[in-house]
Amino acid sequence: MSEDQKRADLVAKHAATLEQAIDAVHTRKSWSPYKDSPSTKIHGPDKPGAGKAAFEARLNRPFEIELPGMVEWSGEEVSPFTQEPLGITYPLCDPERVIEAAKTSMPAWAKAAPDVRIALCMEMADRLYERNFEMAHSVMHVAGQSYTQSFSGSGPNALDRGIEALAYAAIAMANVAPTAEYHRKFGADQVALEKTYTLVPRGVGLVICCASFPTWNAYPAMFASLAAGNPVVVKPHPIAILPMAIVVETCRATLAEFGFDPNLVTLAADTLAEPVAGRYVDHPDVQIIDFTGSPRYGSYLESTVTGKLLYTETAGVNSVVVESVDNLAESMRAIARASSLFSAQMCTSPQVVYVPGEGINTADGHVSFDEVAAAIVSEIDAIVESPKVAAGIMGAIQGQVSLDVVAEAAAAAEDQGLAILRQSAPYDHPDFPNARTCTPLVIAARSEHKEMYADERFGPVLFIVAAESGDAAAAEATELARTRGTISCYMYSIDEAFIDRWVDVYAQVGANLTINLTGAMWINFAAAYSDYHVTGLNPAGNACLADLSFVASRFRIAQRRRPILQGAA
Amino acid sequence: MSEDQKRADLVAKHAATLEQAIDAVHTRKSWSPYKDSPSTKIHGPDKPGAGKAAFEARLNRPFEIELPGMVEWSGEEVSPFTQEPLGITYPLCDPERVIEAAKTSMPAWAKAAPDVRIALCMEMADRLYERNFEMAHSVMHVAGQSYTQSFSGSGPNALDRGIEALAYAAIAMANVAPTAEYHRKFGADQVALEKTYTLVPRGVGLVICCASFPTWNAYPAMFASLAAGNPVVVKPHPIAILPMAIVVETCRATLAEFGFDPNLVTLAADTLAEPVAGRYVDHPDVQIIDFTGSPRYGSYLESTVTGKLLYTETAGVNSVVVESVDNLAESMRAIARASSLFSAQMCTSPQVVYVPGEGINTADGHVSFDEVAAAIVSEIDAIVESPKVAAGIMGAIQGQVSLDVVAEAAAAAEDQGLAILRQSAPYDHPDFPNARTCTPLVIAARSEHKEMYADERFGPVLFIVAAESGDAAAAEATELARTRGTISCYMYSIDEAFIDRWVDVYAQVGANLTINLTGAMWINFAAAYSDYHVTGLNPAGNACLADLSFVASRFRIAQRRRPILQGAA
Repeated sequence: MSEDQKRADLVAKHAATLEQAIDAVHTRKSWSPYKDSPSTKIHGPDKPGAGKAAFEARLNRPFEIELPGMVEWSGEEVSPFTQEPLGITYPLCDPERVIEAAKTSMPAWAKAAPDVRIALCMEMADRLYERNFEMAHSVMHVAGQSYTQSFSGSGPNALDRGIEALAYAAIAMANVAPTAEYHRKFGADQVALEKTYTLVPRGVGLVICCASFPTWNAYPAMFASLAAGNPVVVKPHPIAILPMAIVVETCRATLAEFGFDPNLVTLAADTLAEPVAGRYVDHPDVQIIDFTGSPRYGSYLESTVTGKLLYTETAGVNSVVVESVDNLAESMRAIARASSLFSAQMCTSPQVVYVPGEGINTADGHVSFDEVAAAIVSEIDAIVESPKVAAGIMGAIQGQVSLDVVAEAAAAAEDQGLAILRQSAPYDHPDFPNARTCTPLVIAARSEHKEMYADERFGPVLFIVAAESGDAAAAEATELARTRGTISCYMYSIDEAFIDRWVDVYAQVGANLTINLTGAMWINFAAAYSDYHVTGLNPAGNACLADLSFVASRFRIAQRRRPILQGAA
Repeated sequence: MSEDQKRADLVAKHAATLEQAIDAVHTRKSWSPYKDSPSTKIHGPDKPGAGKAAFEARLNRPFEIELPGMVEWSGEEVSPFTQEPLGITYPLCDPERVIEAAKTSMPAWAKAAPDVRIALCMEMADRLYERNFEMAHSVMHVAGQSYTQSFSGSGPNALDRGIEALAYAAIAMANVAPTAEYHRKFGADQVALEKTYTLVPRGVGLVICCASFPTWNAYPAMFASLAAGNPVVVKPHPIAILPMAIVVETCRATLAEFGFDPNLVTLAADTLAEPVAGRYVDHPDVQIIDFTGSPRYGSYLESTVTGKLLYTETAGVNSVVVESVDNLAESMRAIARASSLFSAQMCTSPQVVYVPGEGINTADGHVSFDEVAAAIVSEIDAIVESPKVAAGIMGAIQGQVSLDVVAEAAAAAEDQGLAILRQSAPYDHPDFPNARTCTPLVIAARSEHKEMYADERFGPVLFIVAAESGDAAAAEATELARTRGTISCYMYSIDEAFIDRWVDVYAQVGANLTINLTGAMWINFAAAYSDYHVTGLNPAGNACLADLSFVASRFRIAQRRRPILQGAA
């Protein structure tokens, strides 16, 4: 089969799914081409074992991948579940050579039609979905996510974010007519011009991934840049390379199979001792930077990068306002679960729960602040009680640094005489006796302890803050969002006037708000196609997953025009 | 009539035109709701005189406008046609107070529906069109544009750019569903959520205008920001305030009439001695900056502004490649006219004409480099010959600085022994004997004189450069575009293989290319809705008039979600 035919077939293969994705981002309904459960009822009996075996076969050996400018091999990943090194080494490459190779790959990719580029990305997504059991184990053992979360959150849920970005890229590129005829009278002359509008990619895209959720932001960034014709260099966190190495391997194989230069997707592995991101960031050929990670490096980029596109998602301090509730236990269970999920190592994990100091109204009458706090602690204890449940929800702690965060918070609370409502402690992981685990620390505080709870603490630390009133709580929560950034805020209230009073304020400070959610859906679950993630209106990041602004600048438009030849008009 | 009803009527009034504008940017056909000729056949017999009288009534008195934070009155405009001060003073305002007032105006504007905001902007455009004879005289006497160009280029053609931006704003905002229902099963639970997506403006927009074409970039920037819910502060060039003061006056009256705070549009006049732009640029509440003007200040902004949206159009070095032509005189006439229009004080004026040193092929046989150059000079002379024609095309020189540019170029050419093919000289303006005029200086050069012709010279200076070949000419032209920036490039060739060989290269360096255009349409005319202006791919600016990327980031999306109440689902 000719290369052109293969590509046309690929476009046809993915066309219906792309249409559905475009429909989903317009209607924002629940949709996914994938299943996010690892159940063998869906995937058959063999895949889970094969995926695990594929992961295990990676261990203690070099990750075989051909990359431009390879200099040496290195790797320093340690599993949060075994606390043993994975023993995998990756090629470290010379940035100049990687960028040179990326640039070389670009013209043929830019020449390919947008629908071909999009179909290639969708094919990459499908192949990554096929390898998702391998991916699940890989994410587990670098990030510490539980098996089920790793399977869903770092698999289909993340791929969905990628396909969502492709849908927006398709919309934005389709908005540009490829050609036009222009007819106008100038004086006595009837002028007829033919115009051609060419989509031109911007340049090399750099995708800097975080350690705790490497794939989730990487897919949309990679696919948005690739769809628009830009090559991408993937820069994983040095302690979480494996998932992104698998991604790069899959993308390169897909590109090569359809006759494109695999150097459209390269891997820029580095080490903690010799970080390489800055060399890419500063390189003039790198024109797009997608960054997910620490607020420290993110805000450094935000305050220094000029003349390039920069998309950031860092982190903020997410809050819950509990003004009143229908059912106390159900609401506090929702908060407890969100605070426990992946041991609060998520950008959507709540850190501060504001409760009026005088207590709140419930359907069963008034309850005190202490009773509300006790309900949250009790719901966390209920999770911890069963090691199996705890393991499925909390997973492991990615790095020692998060244990330090918890210890520092506990020490600071004691220093200031704050009540520790729940001590953090390891729980016994049923499958990995050596897992680095830590249940949530819960501290009671008042508004005057703001400097303690208003700093982002990346780990299982929850502050329950006594506010003067429900309105004071919402005022503090929105001010916290505005000044410290937030990705997800939560509110519980049965007073519609209270809700009405505050929703616009939350919007103005760029806080996405979940109201009165209880039950089976995690309150901090954000669904691609339906939920926007990050508003760009507060310090938690400048980019949104995903909207038109996430894609519309990744390509530019160059035009040419000339008279329509007589007879041809 | 209630305010709501008035606004609804306004939306209805402009709905069909908006639909047509959206259709035009999609089809990129020739379209405008306005007429760009000042003919009394279109506008009736009274408007021209009334407009002139309105302009004259402005002279030698304060421009009465109420603005927040007024401190003192000042004005230093001098007419390029009379070389006399206009004698108009404008209020200079305290930036803190202006920004505070803009912020205060914002919430009610943000709350208005996007279609109301867009309709208000379209109403402003219509009212500016109504005042276009006054605007034409105002632009003439600050910028130096000829009457007809001032009427069209700074009137309907500029308003079209504004409405084009509104069309994109409408498309981008309509892409966001206002609400959605989300239904998904989580485990055994059927979850039903209602979601609300709120468009949130970013913050105060600053629009910095240039002196030679104040309205053209201002309208799209103002309307794009306003449509997305942001207030705008208009910062005119201190020697070209009047047109923008009229714009601000018109916008404020329109806003007030429909019950909005006029401080949504304010004027930040300043003086050459005490420029005020920096105080706005640095203010944290200013979140959007649109800049048109010198490459020096533009690149300063591009290299220092972080954490804000920045849209720039500066200038570049536009080139013509003459590889071969059908009809020598017609092609050279097109180049001569483009080089003469507004005395080359346009961002689309050519500065360098590359011609193979060995000459070119024409339908009438081979002609030498000297013959090509002579044809250009002769076509310029033909314009200069008739003062009436010269006045209509060349207008006046905006400032002494452009005369200095011409004198410096002539001196440098003589220093380096380059042939001056045509000396520049004033021409006698038929209506304004004291007009500051200057016909094009034409210099013959070779590739080795690149440092002379590769610097932008803002004024009537044209270099005709002998290249080694047509391909060498195109190689130089595209390299010039890449390194020095360009907004419009031109090419003449009857060799389709040559054209095919180079169009992609022009696109890659972000050069919009006009090929083989002769006749009544000015080759450097860029039509809103059909021609994209600036690619953002080279140093001539980072923004495009207009595409989705020009508007899609001026608002952000904040969402909220909550369970659908039982019974309501």
